[in-house]
Amino acid sequence: MNIHRINPCKRWSDITVFNGIAHFVEVADSDTSEDIKGQANQIFSQAELALEKIGSDRSRILSVTIYLTDFANLPALNEVRDEWFPEGCAPSRACVKAELADAEYRVEMAFVAAAGEPYLT
Amino acid sequence: MNIHRINPCKRWSDITVFNGIAHFVEVADSDTSEDIKGQANQIFSQAELALEKIGSDRSRILSVTIYLTDFANLPALNEVRDEWFPEGCAPSRACVKAELADAEYRVEMAFVAAAGEPYLT
Amino acid sequence: MNIHRINPCKRWSDITVFNGIAHFVEVADSDTSEDIKGQANQIFSQAELALEKIGSDRSRILSVTIYLTDFANLPALNEVRDEWFPEGCAPSRACVKAELADAEYRVEMAFVAAAGEPYLT
Repeated sequence: MNIHRINPCKRWSDITVFNGIAHFVEVADSDTSEDIKGQANQIFSQAELALEKIGSDRSRILSVTIYLTDFANLPALNEVRDEWFPEGCAPSRACVKAELADAEYRVEMAFVAAAGEPYLT
Repeated sequence: MNIHRINPCKRWSDITVFNGIAHFVEVADSDTSEDIKGQANQIFSQAELALEKIGSDRSRILSVTIYLTDFANLPALNEVRDEWFPEGCAPSRACVKAELADAEYRVEMAFVAAAGEPYLT
Repeated sequence: MNIHRINPCKRWSDITVFNGIAHFVEVADSDTSEDIKGQANQIFSQAELALEKIGSDRSRILSVTIYLTDFANLPALNEVRDEWFPEGCAPSRACVKAELADAEYRVEMAFVAAAGEPYLT
């Protein structure tokens, strides 16, 4: 059983996969000045690319932990999320308030997902 | 290897299971006006039901992340927890302070558990 | 498929392993008066011992969630982390600010790791 790491750098790997289960964490990578919807859309786009790299897709997310800097942004975040997950494929979800490493980040999401072939072994 | 989802709704699934590993998150569902012990008891009762649905039980929890709104409530929470887990079956535990989505919530718990048959494949 | 628990006590287990995947959480155990580098070094030493107990090592960490009490400590924490992980072996990482159960704790880290033989079954 191998450990797969996508883009391992000194400080983190973009994705790790072991025994079919992937871990990856996203914050808005391209424009941190955007509002919550913009940042959430960036995160989901990034997640889509991450999932593609491990033969998976948005229907195979098992768990998401949402760290939100301001609960006033939760309704707008939920709007984006509700549209993004295919019907019947929403993950388990935790959602808490937390300050993030960059003061401009409005949300950070930690994902656990089922990888696809050939990352199942 | 299938992904199992229990009660998938638009925003989340109550439980997801993949490769024998379950993810679920609980906050007090029935009465958020209760104190920490009341909310913890609700959460553990809900967890018991969740575990039953996947052929598992309280002896098979692997990890719990506790988000607590006030550390003054930790001793009372621990009392409830200490009684709930069967001897020798306590999970790995993280415990941090965090504000939660509903101002009445005093604690949110994210669980990782081992599923039972027939959720192991 | 067995659940392995290392040092299960009433409140938590030091490590749980199921299906080859280990969960463990560390805060500075020996001297909470140390600064961030001291506490991070304690945590990584403890993690090393934890990993040894399950036939694993620091090259097999899949995910780390860092709860930091003060982001001013992040650069110093990163220095310690950057040296600790072998090249190409960094895990997925979430990092958020959170108050911790002991006011002296400066950081808490929740790890998911790949166990080694004989903890793969």
